[in-house]
Amino acid sequence: MRAMDASAWHASEARERVRRGEWTAPTAGVAVAHAQANLVCLPREHASDFLLYCVRNPRPCPLLEVLDAGRYEPECAPGADLRTDLPRYRLFEEGELVGELRDLRPVWRGDLVSFLIGCSFSFEAPLLAAGLEVRHLTAGCNVPMYRTNRATRAAGPFRGPLVVSMRPFRPDQVPRVVEITARLARVHGAPVHAGDPAAIGIDDLSRPDYGDAVPIRAGEVPLFWACGVTPQEGLLAARLPFAITHAPGHMFITDLPCSGPFPGDVV
Amino acid sequence: MRAMDASAWHASEARERVRRGEWTAPTAGVAVAHAQANLVCLPREHASDFLLYCVRNPRPCPLLEVLDAGRYEPECAPGADLRTDLPRYRLFEEGELVGELRDLRPVWRGDLVSFLIGCSFSFEAPLLAAGLEVRHLTAGCNVPMYRTNRATRAAGPFRGPLVVSMRPFRPDQVPRVVEITARLARVHGAPVHAGDPAAIGIDDLSRPDYGDAVPIRAGEVPLFWACGVTPQEGLLAARLPFAITHAPGHMFITDLPCSGPFPGDVV
Repeated sequence: MRAMDASAWHASEARERVRRGEWTAPTAGVAVAHAQANLVCLPREHASDFLLYCVRNPRPCPLLEVLDAGRYEPECAPGADLRTDLPRYRLFEEGELVGELRDLRPVWRGDLVSFLIGCSFSFEAPLLAAGLEVRHLTAGCNVPMYRTNRATRAAGPFRGPLVVSMRPFRPDQVPRVVEITARLARVHGAPVHAGDPAAIGIDDLSRPDYGDAVPIRAGEVPLFWACGVTPQEGLLAARLPFAITHAPGHMFITDLPCSGPFPGDVV
Repeated sequence: MRAMDASAWHASEARERVRRGEWTAPTAGVAVAHAQANLVCLPREHASDFLLYCVRNPRPCPLLEVLDAGRYEPECAPGADLRTDLPRYRLFEEGELVGELRDLRPVWRGDLVSFLIGCSFSFEAPLLAAGLEVRHLTAGCNVPMYRTNRATRAAGPFRGPLVVSMRPFRPDQVPRVVEITARLARVHGAPVHAGDPAAIGIDDLSRPDYGDAVPIRAGEVPLFWACGVTPQEGLLAARLPFAITHAPGHMFITDLPCSGPFPGDVV
């Protein structure tokens, strides 16, 4: 099944297929009318510091929803279950990535606070609608993501480098891409850097730290957006006894429209 | 001393005059090049719920900065002291307003977490610069603020009505006012309501719940913005043993430019 076949799904259909194990791939290009979200689940005792980490770093960590401890049905997707409706999860223990899971129910705990953080996949449909090519969708792979040399602002034990996603565009397209994405602050907004990867500490675009490399054509400008994988680096630094995240690129698909409004955008 | 004389002050000069007791009035129109902020100080044990309350209600509670417990010198105003640099504070005990203070030092505690929340005074200079009249500045009084019938989203013990500030404009000015303020989400952004006060539960514009009434001319449209006094209603509902806020209209003047960028707007 190719991502393009899945692009027209409603969010609830996409989640159901994920839950049944019929869709296990990255979610770029899936149910493109709907906003997608990064997931972080932490024991309550660490939730306050992590919440502050997100507030201090709104570009990589724009909060869409924070669930009360133990809850797994978000308001942004009634009927969904955060424990089963993402294609792949990562389990961290004592600050180490110890494995990937397809189902959180065996490890779920009543003290887990779930954070849904905006994902840049959400602005790809508006880019396509403007006639712009999104390279990893054309290539049928995950978006490339890179650690940078820019530090996030710490909160409690959470600290670490900014992680960015990258999409290449022609120079004449760059302003339009910035304009379209700048309107969508809750899914990372405008790029944080245009061009020269070395200036933000990225040595080799063909070797992403997360996701897949994509072809870049001569003359194209790599645009970099703050990425919701950033908190996974923060989790490694915090060395928490227990934490769960989505696997990079394997997002939660909300019922929210891909261009908003998002919770709190309207009163 | 009239507000107009003070409009050109640098933020640090304004804070110094406040600290020396030379400026005790509302801060609308003071040091207009700089963003102003609402203040909430809470014991650490309640800070996490309040942080979540702000995250769930970003229109009334856009966070500019959250200080670590016990700290009173914010990053957005190096050298400032949150305990002395606002003209007037409110002290709450057991959920009741017990008094107003000019200086927090006698009641300051090492476990207090301070929240700085964006204030709509910050977008008044851009409105003036666009040739628009801001009525309470013309009148030389505080902005009028009203409780509405719209509920905020609860977090822990914090809940309560949305509070709004009001500024009247001619119908032909309304779109420009919306456009200018919509760009500034970190200081409340676009209005949440245009016209008919009764539709949001306001019976009488001449009797604000906070601040001062202003004259409204025939044909003018009242525009309502989510207001940083909203958390003061949330505090009353929470019935915390101890809490401090600014007195409505008596804000903290930051070093930030009035139109941003604000902390986290750029990485």
